[in-house]
Amino acid sequence: MNYKNGKVENIKIAYIGGGSRGWAWGLMSDLVKASDISGDVYLYDIDLQAAKNNVIIGNKYNSADGANTVWNYHATETIGEALTGADFVVISILPGTFDEMYSDVHTPEKYGIYQPVGDTAGPGGIVRAMRTIPMFEEIGANIKEFCPNAWVINYTNPMTWCVKALYHAFPEIKAFGCCHEVFGTQKLLAEVVKVKLGVEKPERTEIKVNPVAVNHFTWLTEATYRNIDLFPLYKEFCQENKGGYFIDGLVDDNWMNGAFKTRDKLKIDLFNKFGWIAAAGDRHLAEFCEGKWYLESKERVEEMEFGLTSVADRRDELRIRLGMSERMISGEDPVVIKETGEEGVNQIRALLGLEDLVTNVNIPNRGQIPNLPLGAVVETNAVFRDSSLVPVFAGPIPTEIYPLVSRICAEQEAVFEGIAERNVEKIFAAFANDALVTCSLDDARKLFDEMCENTKEYLGMYEF
Amino acid sequence: MNYKNGKVENIKIAYIGGGSRGWAWGLMSDLVKASDISGDVYLYDIDLQAAKNNVIIGNKYNSADGANTVWNYHATETIGEALTGADFVVISILPGTFDEMYSDVHTPEKYGIYQPVGDTAGPGGIVRAMRTIPMFEEIGANIKEFCPNAWVINYTNPMTWCVKALYHAFPEIKAFGCCHEVFGTQKLLAEVVKVKLGVEKPERTEIKVNPVAVNHFTWLTEATYRNIDLFPLYKEFCQENKGGYFIDGLVDDNWMNGAFKTRDKLKIDLFNKFGWIAAAGDRHLAEFCEGKWYLESKERVEEMEFGLTSVADRRDELRIRLGMSERMISGEDPVVIKETGEEGVNQIRALLGLEDLVTNVNIPNRGQIPNLPLGAVVETNAVFRDSSLVPVFAGPIPTEIYPLVSRICAEQEAVFEGIAERNVEKIFAAFANDALVTCSLDDARKLFDEMCENTKEYLGMYEF
Amino acid sequence: MNYKNGKVENIKIAYIGGGSRGWAWGLMSDLVKASDISGDVYLYDIDLQAAKNNVIIGNKYNSADGANTVWNYHATETIGEALTGADFVVISILPGTFDEMYSDVHTPEKYGIYQPVGDTAGPGGIVRAMRTIPMFEEIGANIKEFCPNAWVINYTNPMTWCVKALYHAFPEIKAFGCCHEVFGTQKLLAEVVKVKLGVEKPERTEIKVNPVAVNHFTWLTEATYRNIDLFPLYKEFCQENKGGYFIDGLVDDNWMNGAFKTRDKLKIDLFNKFGWIAAAGDRHLAEFCEGKWYLESKERVEEMEFGLTSVADRRDELRIRLGMSERMISGEDPVVIKETGEEGVNQIRALLGLEDLVTNVNIPNRGQIPNLPLGAVVETNAVFRDSSLVPVFAGPIPTEIYPLVSRICAEQEAVFEGIAERNVEKIFAAFANDALVTCSLDDARKLFDEMCENTKEYLGMYEF
Amino acid sequence: MNYKNGKVENIKIAYIGGGSRGWAWGLMSDLVKASDISGDVYLYDIDLQAAKNNVIIGNKYNSADGANTVWNYHATETIGEALTGADFVVISILPGTFDEMYSDVHTPEKYGIYQPVGDTAGPGGIVRAMRTIPMFEEIGANIKEFCPNAWVINYTNPMTWCVKALYHAFPEIKAFGCCHEVFGTQKLLAEVVKVKLGVEKPERTEIKVNPVAVNHFTWLTEATYRNIDLFPLYKEFCQENKGGYFIDGLVDDNWMNGAFKTRDKLKIDLFNKFGWIAAAGDRHLAEFCEGKWYLESKERVEEMEFGLTSVADRRDELRIRLGMSERMISGEDPVVIKETGEEGVNQIRALLGLEDLVTNVNIPNRGQIPNLPLGAVVETNAVFRDSSLVPVFAGPIPTEIYPLVSRICAEQEAVFEGIAERNVEKIFAAFANDALVTCSLDDARKLFDEMCENTKEYLGMYEF
Repeated sequence: MNYKNGKVENIKIAYIGGGSRGWAWGLMSDLVKASDISGDVYLYDIDLQAAKNNVIIGNKYNSADGANTVWNYHATETIGEALTGADFVVISILPGTFDEMYSDVHTPEKYGIYQPVGDTAGPGGIVRAMRTIPMFEEIGANIKEFCPNAWVINYTNPMTWCVKALYHAFPEIKAFGCCHEVFGTQKLLAEVVKVKLGVEKPERTEIKVNPVAVNHFTWLTEATYRNIDLFPLYKEFCQENKGGYFIDGLVDDNWMNGAFKTRDKLKIDLFNKFGWIAAAGDRHLAEFCEGKWYLESKERVEEMEFGLTSVADRRDELRIRLGMSERMISGEDPVVIKETGEEGVNQIRALLGLEDLVTNVNIPNRGQIPNLPLGAVVETNAVFRDSSLVPVFAGPIPTEIYPLVSRICAEQEAVFEGIAERNVEKIFAAFANDALVTCSLDDARKLFDEMCENTKEYLGMYEF
Repeated sequence: MNYKNGKVENIKIAYIGGGSRGWAWGLMSDLVKASDISGDVYLYDIDLQAAKNNVIIGNKYNSADGANTVWNYHATETIGEALTGADFVVISILPGTFDEMYSDVHTPEKYGIYQPVGDTAGPGGIVRAMRTIPMFEEIGANIKEFCPNAWVINYTNPMTWCVKALYHAFPEIKAFGCCHEVFGTQKLLAEVVKVKLGVEKPERTEIKVNPVAVNHFTWLTEATYRNIDLFPLYKEFCQENKGGYFIDGLVDDNWMNGAFKTRDKLKIDLFNKFGWIAAAGDRHLAEFCEGKWYLESKERVEEMEFGLTSVADRRDELRIRLGMSERMISGEDPVVIKETGEEGVNQIRALLGLEDLVTNVNIPNRGQIPNLPLGAVVETNAVFRDSSLVPVFAGPIPTEIYPLVSRICAEQEAVFEGIAERNVEKIFAAFANDALVTCSLDDARKLFDEMCENTKEYLGMYEF
Repeated sequence: MNYKNGKVENIKIAYIGGGSRGWAWGLMSDLVKASDISGDVYLYDIDLQAAKNNVIIGNKYNSADGANTVWNYHATETIGEALTGADFVVISILPGTFDEMYSDVHTPEKYGIYQPVGDTAGPGGIVRAMRTIPMFEEIGANIKEFCPNAWVINYTNPMTWCVKALYHAFPEIKAFGCCHEVFGTQKLLAEVVKVKLGVEKPERTEIKVNPVAVNHFTWLTEATYRNIDLFPLYKEFCQENKGGYFIDGLVDDNWMNGAFKTRDKLKIDLFNKFGWIAAAGDRHLAEFCEGKWYLESKERVEEMEFGLTSVADRRDELRIRLGMSERMISGEDPVVIKETGEEGVNQIRALLGLEDLVTNVNIPNRGQIPNLPLGAVVETNAVFRDSSLVPVFAGPIPTEIYPLVSRICAEQEAVFEGIAERNVEKIFAAFANDALVTCSLDDARKLFDEMCENTKEYLGMYEF
Repeated sequence: MNYKNGKVENIKIAYIGGGSRGWAWGLMSDLVKASDISGDVYLYDIDLQAAKNNVIIGNKYNSADGANTVWNYHATETIGEALTGADFVVISILPGTFDEMYSDVHTPEKYGIYQPVGDTAGPGGIVRAMRTIPMFEEIGANIKEFCPNAWVINYTNPMTWCVKALYHAFPEIKAFGCCHEVFGTQKLLAEVVKVKLGVEKPERTEIKVNPVAVNHFTWLTEATYRNIDLFPLYKEFCQENKGGYFIDGLVDDNWMNGAFKTRDKLKIDLFNKFGWIAAAGDRHLAEFCEGKWYLESKERVEEMEFGLTSVADRRDELRIRLGMSERMISGEDPVVIKETGEEGVNQIRALLGLEDLVTNVNIPNRGQIPNLPLGAVVETNAVFRDSSLVPVFAGPIPTEIYPLVSRICAEQEAVFEGIAERNVEKIFAAFANDALVTCSLDDARKLFDEMCENTKEYLGMYEF
């Protein structure tokens, strides 16, 4: 890596899960748009062919319309090859297959437990964590061995537990988790500014916010636009739109968000109840609240208009993407540069010293949220600067939402400890206490056992 | 108050709720047994006649068999008379009548919510707190005015909120909450010692414990007897007695505990699940756990064998005690001195410098439990010595039970803030998030409104 | 205040101490350079004529070469007029006259105590604080009354105590202290980059640092340039330059820094001893270290080459500036716009939402430095954004320098408490324990009394 | 070890430094007075003959007048023999010889630095720590190997660093440091009670205190007797006795305290200055204050009437004790049981569950003093009970004395880190910053080097 004329060249990025047909293409697009950085991207994937396909696609981006720099793509057969000498490591993997995900999401339905996502929280999130955390412990150990000084950016869910596992395996790791969920709420607030003040809709980044708590259950304790406190406006807005609000003009160019539109009815309801702005999609928020609130039944979900993402939907989505991949490789379809709205590349640029950046991130709590446990992975703003990532002092979780958040964070710690110790009983104790596990203790045990049985191929490290 | 020959004379105790037909008699009995303290007890009660009756009964204790000292009883018409110049204040009141208690306990049953006690937690505890906290704020203000240096001992439930209200009204108050629930678990551990070690059953006080968390949902993180760690023994015991255990020889002379025997099945289940010793009666513990665990239905309660205390039971109990009162006054029945097993009088003696005492107590968290909020009222051991009550450093809530406890403590803080601000919406937000409120949000609101309506006579300070 | 086309108009700034012949002109120059903000500046000064003179000078800046915007200046007879409706308040006053300063700086010399500055720490700093803190308590009370929502920027020394006094008088105040001392060390590090890496000298702002501790005794725990950790380079540099280093090309255009050049010998010595980068001028640093280290005698000061600033120098300086003022008013001299290098105007712009800014600032410790007392005023980086100033989580003071820093911070708290309570004995206890007060206790008392006597005109609020 | 009829038999105590002619005899006397414990004491000493001599003496205690139990003494050739199976370990060693102590105490005098003790703080304490900490790391490792569950009681100075070293070597160790210094202040307060209240002098243990800070620089933040706050009385007393106070009737039977009487002039002065009760002997207190306060010169020491303990005095003392040892062995002198007033045996009894005991102790800070660093060894009250030693929540160091205490505690941490890392420069940085090192930096270095040279036989683990 070297600096030259205000640019940074010969950067080495390792991409774990580099066969991805989603995040990988987004990153390729964002990288090639950035005019002041260039280098090599090494793709490692347990599906080597997928990585090789992405090498072809990645290299095509260099000559796409709007490309401002050049990145050379390579596939590696071992993780060590990808990591050795890496300046940055990007992790976006699918832990297991759709079969395991099917069990995570749909097995609980037998017990009346509906999960709109099932990869972060609830029974699905916990069992997914059981197979994912050991993988991330291994990735962490590899980073310790091959590139201990690299910056590590994780996009994989369950975000909180993945980041925690990296730090558990290698406490000196410079890792952080990156997620766009908060951005959607910034966009909603921009809409509120437009509607309530009668001005042109501001950019997302003009809405300044102070996020706190944990990934996908993030809350804003401050939100302003041009020195205007947005809380009073949002309060009016939420009173006026109890039935939900659909952002008319919104065309979200990021394919990743496309399927997941909601009317923000749940988010509005949470504000009306607690007075603080929940800042994730309704599908995610629902999974952290008491199960009976928004997920009591399919009817309740319909009433709240946020939708359950079935694994069938995800399989369909993948089929589409496999087709896209083939057509890009064959040249039938062009690769197209469009900004994802993700912060990943800007974070890389800031860490290289090319700009200062303040944005939200998932890292262990060093005190940035004083009333959550030290070491728990939390989401707050942080300052990205040359070689440095420092959380801002985000302040305590407000009293009104502390019962909700402290419980979730404590559960995440307990689940993590159970998994790190491969202690099934400890994991179950936390599972049984989860907000979504509204069934009886006996049924909770049956459910847990069944979910573990369904995914046992990936749970060989536990003794049941 | 003066010291003479190793005794303390002319102590003034004010008893708020001094017409009580339970705690008051217990205190009278314990006071007269203590040979090294004497003085006057001023009884204040909104039912002046009840206080006057207790004056008669109290004075009779001085000549009962086993009396070692003399206390003179007085009834006062105003709280100020009772408090002025008091060295100690004892508070044990019934906030409202049995009608309000009936609503607290039984209204939630319409929504499938069963509460074995209903005065500490759950919907019943919260609504009871709504009428009790304002009363305790007033008592706190009176203490500030009339006897700011007095030690204040509260026995009233909801304990946590009552103590918090006293400190809220008068931050310099020297108040603490006193509860015997932990003693029962010490007795159970003594039984475990007997059974597992084949030795004579030790005294309760020989079982040394480190209690943490909050009143009625207290947990032991250490328990020993003669340098033997009791955790391994209790683990075996709990494995062997999943179906519950009945302490055969136990004859509890304290009328207050009589009706509430259980087989400790729930307590044993919690240990098997979480590995830490829950230290309150099963009836109380159930109210802090997920509603679906032990209170899903009347059948579940029967299966767990802990029993629901109906308000009808309590009315019956009162009728019996009114009879006792009459007969004691008339002389038909003698007053009888028997030790209650309560620590109150020993605490008074320790605060006077007559002995050092280490026992559990409810006071605001100054850091004795570092992972619960500062200022929240918690239960831990404390050292009572001459003029001094200092908590021990009890240590953090263990990871396994932190999800349960952090949620409860956070809810207690949120409820308190809502009540202190007389903010009904804030109270409801916490109510809806309570572990027992397993119904839908809409139903939760209906329930809350109905419970408030039923008890509105005592809720005039809120705007609905 | 209103936003229009990416600019902010009609901003009202109140300047307390607006007759200043230094900071005021710098601010005028910086304000008129900023193209996206405009409005009115109200100058209040106990010397009304000085304020009126500055109105004339300020208005001339609008037509100076390089002016990009317009600010209208006004003098006010009362502080209320200046403050009412202010969006920003700037405070830069001289607490007392040069006579008091003369006593602060030179009286201790009788006892062998030499102070190179005497306005922040040591006996001079403490006695100056005794007259300044009451003034700032009054200013704080005025802000509470007239413009509670204004942002308040303090430039006055003793910085730490001034900021603390504002928060003491009005806890909700949005105040911060602004100081350029750290910048000098960033410039030295830029020189180190040039010398050790053989590259062109970078801009100060390209050197990214993490400052901790307190104003004028600030330390860097991180320093990087383009992903290069500067600690190893600085270590070499300090080993090679034990005799000091003079930055050759450095022409500091800011008049405020001109007289105060040093060879950074002391700063280099501190690094060689403790391994962390002290980040203030040598004259300031010396005042926080053990008196015997660098201030034992005039010879020692000469040896260390940092110079003592006598009050005679300051009187001379003022005479020069009075002349400048007259000539600018008469038109004999032009007003000249040159950048001060101060961050004040950028901070204002960031708080208005015109950019994000990360820079160092003095505010109460909310946890940004976890091993200094909460509420103590500390210096760390902070994020300035639209309506928001949030410290970063700067981390603990490192073990090696914690003995030095914890003592200073504790002393500042003790002095403040003594002054806030107008408790002379408490102030003296801290005074006697100051690092510079190397004389015996008896002499310390004589010195303290003499210094108080000398400045008694401003100490009427204390009982001696 | 077994419990029988309310007694504990077959206790094994290991005594490291068991050849001691002071502490050992005191312990023997106290052990044999206690009627409810008995067992074996294994004496290990690098001077095996001294240990063997103490075996003879120890066994004689069993038949001395007033003996209530039997302890069998044994000398061991290896530390492992002594430790294997031990229930308790007592450590009281002399680190090095009187030659090293001579250097510690007297070398600094060349630079005008006088130390009344020189084994805890100041240059002497630091250099002593350099040879002692490695010894204690080794003892800690041995305890880990041979008796990880034993309770470990340290009497050796420098107390703070010895205890810290044990925990550093073996974090799970159950060690605490035991010191009688606070007792002297309790006795002074008993005298104050007598004088000011005109009552009979109370027992030391009737004076209840809350000690905080570090060993030998301990302060009382509360002191009461029979519900009387002693602060106002002590304030009057200190105003009346600025010239010192000699406790007339005091005959201290404990030989260990005999030589060290003072008039408490310094302690009184500290109270008059800071308003909190310093609770150690004047000789110790002086070593933690600014060197110029009480140790500026021999004249100043004489004026303060606390005396410097020369090493010649200590050699004389030893000669006397060697004679005593010989005469006791030969039978020329009888062994005499007299209570030392130490708490050691009571602590042992409490840890065995024979009583509850609240007393002061030196252990790592877990939060018992919230404004000192976690992990630093601090002195506060603690509860000794069956198998359990828990600090009370002692509260923060008060503002007035926080500058003094925070500096000392931070220095202790820095010195420890330097020694643990065998990093001479880090040690020197802390040494140079010590309160007693009032000479110039250059002289400080010369002094440090000379002291290390003088004691180099014990400093082989450092690279100079």
